[in-house]
Amino acid sequence: MPVPNALDEARQELALANKIAHHEGVLDTFGHVSMRHPGNPNHYFLSRSSAPDMVTVERLVEYDLDSQPVRPHNYTQFSERVIHGEIYKARPDVMAICHHHAPAFMPLLVTGTDYVPVFHLGAVGGIKPPYWDQRDEFGDTMLLVVKPEEGASLARALGQHSMVLMRRHGVTVVGSSVPDCVYRSIQSCRNAEFQVRSMMIGKIASLSEGETKLAGQITGKTTGLTRSWEYWAAQIAKTGAPAGRAGKTAKRKTKASASRNAKRRR
Amino acid sequence: MPVPNALDEARQELALANKIAHHEGVLDTFGHVSMRHPGNPNHYFLSRSSAPDMVTVERLVEYDLDSQPVRPHNYTQFSERVIHGEIYKARPDVMAICHHHAPAFMPLLVTGTDYVPVFHLGAVGGIKPPYWDQRDEFGDTMLLVVKPEEGASLARALGQHSMVLMRRHGVTVVGSSVPDCVYRSIQSCRNAEFQVRSMMIGKIASLSEGETKLAGQITGKTTGLTRSWEYWAAQIAKTGAPAGRAGKTAKRKTKASASRNAKRRR
Amino acid sequence: MPVPNALDEARQELALANKIAHHEGVLDTFGHVSMRHPGNPNHYFLSRSSAPDMVTVERLVEYDLDSQPVRPHNYTQFSERVIHGEIYKARPDVMAICHHHAPAFMPLLVTGTDYVPVFHLGAVGGIKPPYWDQRDEFGDTMLLVVKPEEGASLARALGQHSMVLMRRHGVTVVGSSVPDCVYRSIQSCRNAEFQVRSMMIGKIASLSEGETKLAGQITGKTTGLTRSWEYWAAQIAKTGAPAGRAGKTAKRKTKASASRNAKRRR
Amino acid sequence: MPVPNALDEARQELALANKIAHHEGVLDTFGHVSMRHPGNPNHYFLSRSSAPDMVTVERLVEYDLDSQPVRPHNYTQFSERVIHGEIYKARPDVMAICHHHAPAFMPLLVTGTDYVPVFHLGAVGGIKPPYWDQRDEFGDTMLLVVKPEEGASLARALGQHSMVLMRRHGVTVVGSSVPDCVYRSIQSCRNAEFQVRSMMIGKIASLSEGETKLAGQITGKTTGLTRSWEYWAAQIAKTGAPAGRAGKTAKRKTKASASRNAKRRR
Repeated sequence: MPVPNALDEARQELALANKIAHHEGVLDTFGHVSMRHPGNPNHYFLSRSSAPDMVTVERLVEYDLDSQPVRPHNYTQFSERVIHGEIYKARPDVMAICHHHAPAFMPLLVTGTDYVPVFHLGAVGGIKPPYWDQRDEFGDTMLLVVKPEEGASLARALGQHSMVLMRRHGVTVVGSSVPDCVYRSIQSCRNAEFQVRSMMIGKIASLSEGETKLAGQITGKTTGLTRSWEYWAAQIAKTGAPAGRAGKTAKRKTKASASRNAKRRR
Repeated sequence: MPVPNALDEARQELALANKIAHHEGVLDTFGHVSMRHPGNPNHYFLSRSSAPDMVTVERLVEYDLDSQPVRPHNYTQFSERVIHGEIYKARPDVMAICHHHAPAFMPLLVTGTDYVPVFHLGAVGGIKPPYWDQRDEFGDTMLLVVKPEEGASLARALGQHSMVLMRRHGVTVVGSSVPDCVYRSIQSCRNAEFQVRSMMIGKIASLSEGETKLAGQITGKTTGLTRSWEYWAAQIAKTGAPAGRAGKTAKRKTKASASRNAKRRR
Repeated sequence: MPVPNALDEARQELALANKIAHHEGVLDTFGHVSMRHPGNPNHYFLSRSSAPDMVTVERLVEYDLDSQPVRPHNYTQFSERVIHGEIYKARPDVMAICHHHAPAFMPLLVTGTDYVPVFHLGAVGGIKPPYWDQRDEFGDTMLLVVKPEEGASLARALGQHSMVLMRRHGVTVVGSSVPDCVYRSIQSCRNAEFQVRSMMIGKIASLSEGETKLAGQITGKTTGLTRSWEYWAAQIAKTGAPAGRAGKTAKRKTKASASRNAKRRR
Repeated sequence: MPVPNALDEARQELALANKIAHHEGVLDTFGHVSMRHPGNPNHYFLSRSSAPDMVTVERLVEYDLDSQPVRPHNYTQFSERVIHGEIYKARPDVMAICHHHAPAFMPLLVTGTDYVPVFHLGAVGGIKPPYWDQRDEFGDTMLLVVKPEEGASLARALGQHSMVLMRRHGVTVVGSSVPDCVYRSIQSCRNAEFQVRSMMIGKIASLSEGETKLAGQITGKTTGLTRSWEYWAAQIAKTGAPAGRAGKTAKRKTKASASRNAKRRR
């Protein structure tokens, strides 16, 4: 049996990430998690058209930053892949992206309410991350981000934030690694859910700026991410899903991707 | 083993559709999905009395448009099958119908609140689809649509829309194919859930007319429906349910029904 | 293998009923469904102390109407069994009782809001069924109905209704058979859930008195109860639960209990 | 096979407790249940860094009351273990502690709303248990309780209550045994959920002081805790989790821990 190399491991982690984001309620039949090629910053990996729970290593496609497949294929593709390509162009520090329409966020997106971190783990989203309304620049559309200029506009709205809220559509979250991006997506969804339910009974309190900055470092300074990834991977393993070597190797893989990313960030 | 013909495949798809609509929270112990006979526009298929999750090909009954069984049988039947027969009479373009009482819609139906598309996938329901109140024309009833004139009245209220809301009762959704109808039912339920939760915290924004028209074409112009059906069928296959050849053949079947419908529409 | 007799079947149905009420969200670790002895109106069956999902035929105890065990035993018992005994005394037409603390009802019980039928299947609970507050007659208690006089007081509040709401505690539902009682419990919970969610976004509409009376007969006039019981029993059978011969015999058993009850009612 | 001793049983019960609290929605990927060493009041057991559902006997670490491991090890640890150590110091009667961030409580913690017992089983939390805001004494932090003085401050806020609410963070619950602590955690979460949903539709009623005192004794005076633990353990056993000998021995173990605690309390 050949020794798996770093790229194989990263691709397995990405397939697993799509399943985890699905299993934890961030993705449903739609939405996707991508990753920048760990060895080539000008390419990224994203599944061909597939429900997130059915993403496998075999379904991953390598794209250039114009979101064109590096190798021709006959599979159907996600129409919104420019979200990924344009953000990877604009943000060299970003190593993974999750685009989703999680129910937890919908009340915010439908009413135009700002996201506010209401508990320590919600600090991953920042205080009042930016909104983007496709209508502002492009008028009436089918609300899918399919043209390069639409993706570029979204990337501009994202700026240096870790997520951007898309009116009447969804959310796009970025991270410094695949696990980091998935963790941010899951915890910001939980925060959004808590925020919305809290607004139904009273006036909500926000973390202060200082608390948000400090609590935003929990992921890096505690064992929370490793612990979470081990658990999430074990949940997927229970379902018998084929992608990724969930469970035992999760910890190592998380570290692996962390070191890969450490090298890439300057 | 004989080669399955198009009718067999369509019937398997219909049994699967009932299970999917159940699994995705549209149907519970009540409600039903029917399909127009792919080879005879004057007949339709609907299960005999059965919880949706227990519908099998064997339980399907062929009805004429007066909702009388084509072949006599001794099974108990749904009392509300005139919903299906009368709509098939009034709308030659309709190939499948789902009648449901999904929890997601109940707050709208109980308060008489209009359905509003609040995110792109909710465009499948249109802007403010019509309401029908059985009491208006028929006074006090048990609120089941059991008489032909009640079904005909409901069909008139539906008009050329893709769904009609029934006060203090439920919803009836139509589609150009079985997967299209199930997809509309599921996505409109999700939109209703998002709309209701959004109303609890603020003022909701609607898709514009232009956005609704364009986003309403997502099903036809993207890979979303195929992707969804593959996923939904795989979920049913996991439960060990006998109906339909879920999973591998799902894509082909979806295409098959699409071409069947294409031929039928003029 | 001996032929199972009617009493054996009824006891199996009762064990299954507890599991169904649990599986459908009416009961959790607490609450219980009892049945009047089909051959002796002065006795009833109730599980010994047991979470509803763990009730088996072997755990059922035969009680007299003073809620004393007919045969001495050493098992721990439910402290609230007088709810059952006192209602069976006061209501000879009642053949089964469910006492529960379903989450769906809690917002009503905590705020003292009347139950209102907001969709056809919610008619099983009637319009504004009575409230009972243990504090009114008995002052400060642990809010458990443990004394015969407390049970008798609750039975007086129930009167000829099909359910009584207990402030800051729960609900007690009666029925003409075990399946009828379980069906009323489940559908009234669903109605309560819809009512509560509807109240969060607007003014709710009630079924009219005429609609409530007519829709209250749906259970007897349609195939809904048989269809539901078949489905619920199949769900329990999937979990591998030992009690009751779920599934295939469910329909026959439902009929059996119906005829038993028909004989008993005069 | 060696006869399991009391400590082995207690440790198995603790591992099981973490899984139960997870399965019942109190814990997710974060939070933890600890227990005072049954034979040494100056030590306590807590898992090394682990998602609650993955806690096993092997992962348990023995700590002194300064939250330092009794035996050196190389595993990662929870950063918030001072919550446990400082409360065990301040409260000799406390035998088990659960720290959680349950969704049910979040609307209270985010809006600063008092917890109010709204049904009999919610009496386990008392009337308006104290709040603690880390910001008051420590200014901007990452909102994790990691320093001994932070843990001691939290313990002072807890006082003689059975739980303390932590603004924008979570809840810490104490008990006289592991099952008692888990039971209180679960039932107070249910109460919080009911309270929040009730507040969305009207004015809530509280149990009176007398009712709260009396209903707070339900755990000790009825079979509710034994019944619940048997059920919860059986649920975990179904999932195939390795920790604890769930099910058959649960009752005995519960008694065992009760007698252990009885001895320890003076």
